[in-house]
Amino acid sequence: MLHLLEPTDPRWVEAVAVDTDGLLTDHAHCELKAAQSALSIVARFGGEAPELVEPLSALAREETQHFRQVHEHIEARGGALGKPAVDEYVQLLRKAARADHGDAPALLDRLLVSALIEARSCERFKLLAERLPDPKLADFYRALMMAEARHFTLFAGLAEARFGAAARERLRLLATREASVAHTLPLGPTVHG
Amino acid sequence: MLHLLEPTDPRWVEAVAVDTDGLLTDHAHCELKAAQSALSIVARFGGEAPELVEPLSALAREETQHFRQVHEHIEARGGALGKPAVDEYVQLLRKAARADHGDAPALLDRLLVSALIEARSCERFKLLAERLPDPKLADFYRALMMAEARHFTLFAGLAEARFGAAARERLRLLATREASVAHTLPLGPTVHG
Repeated sequence: MLHLLEPTDPRWVEAVAVDTDGLLTDHAHCELKAAQSALSIVARFGGEAPELVEPLSALAREETQHFRQVHEHIEARGGALGKPAVDEYVQLLRKAARADHGDAPALLDRLLVSALIEARSCERFKLLAERLPDPKLADFYRALMMAEARHFTLFAGLAEARFGAAARERLRLLATREASVAHTLPLGPTVHG
Repeated sequence: MLHLLEPTDPRWVEAVAVDTDGLLTDHAHCELKAAQSALSIVARFGGEAPELVEPLSALAREETQHFRQVHEHIEARGGALGKPAVDEYVQLLRKAARADHGDAPALLDRLLVSALIEARSCERFKLLAERLPDPKLADFYRALMMAEARHFTLFAGLAEARFGAAARERLRLLATREASVAHTLPLGPTVHG
């Protein structure tokens, strides 16, 4: 359903379990970046594709709310938000999409890359929900996992509504590139690492 | 109260009245940029200054909501969001603050520059509320004018809570630079132009 071709290596959860604080800071920044990315899609493409404006501004507000929730978990653990780091997974995925884009429109790839990031986050949050020893955090990731699945459907649906069959075909191709990016990265205590 | 040292030239309203659609597109992008700027302050400084996290994420959500309202006005007029343009006022103001910053911390200037942008927007929205012939738009700008005043107080208050008397002194200095930036720019159908 989520179009992911490679499951996450189960050892990723072990890397996370030894540095949950590191995961939470990385996750908080992921939510901020997701909100900023949704706003930047609206700013760049909202004129030619006005149907994006409402759902993606609503998404930006929701991602900002998720960021606040992650931040509350960080504070409840006595921690503080760490510095933002480059998200290598997202950068490599964007590069993999655009390096050899044929005639795929930039907007189509922005939507589909966003869909795949949501799909991968959903898959990983499911692992966290099942495996994290802290029951509060496990519940939190169960709720977020469902939000990420909904966001995947939103982005893939917006792409299909505008680009039709070309969107489905391109999603299949980008999913193969996503699988190899996800497979290449070292396992670490980050959402996409 | 808003610390502005130079009133807007009243001819600015005339430039806006002949191109209200241009104003609305520029204003829509201002709201998006304000949301993105609040999120980027949180990402960069939220670790060292956790007291910023809640109010500035709430602000980002509110600015995104204002963007949606401006977009509804654009659609109600049969228009579409235009391309984002560089906001020369904001760029010059940031440069004016940082070119000769002495020992002023980067966070202090981010907060105070944001405060001054809100103050100038408030002053200009008041002119729009009083002078725009379309009563719906005039009402809209009256409501936003009050929001901008509240945001000025939020940013100036956060700066003062963290930096004390240094914040008040720096605000007086930056207000003189803001006045000269606002005075230099040609009058056009943009929020800060």
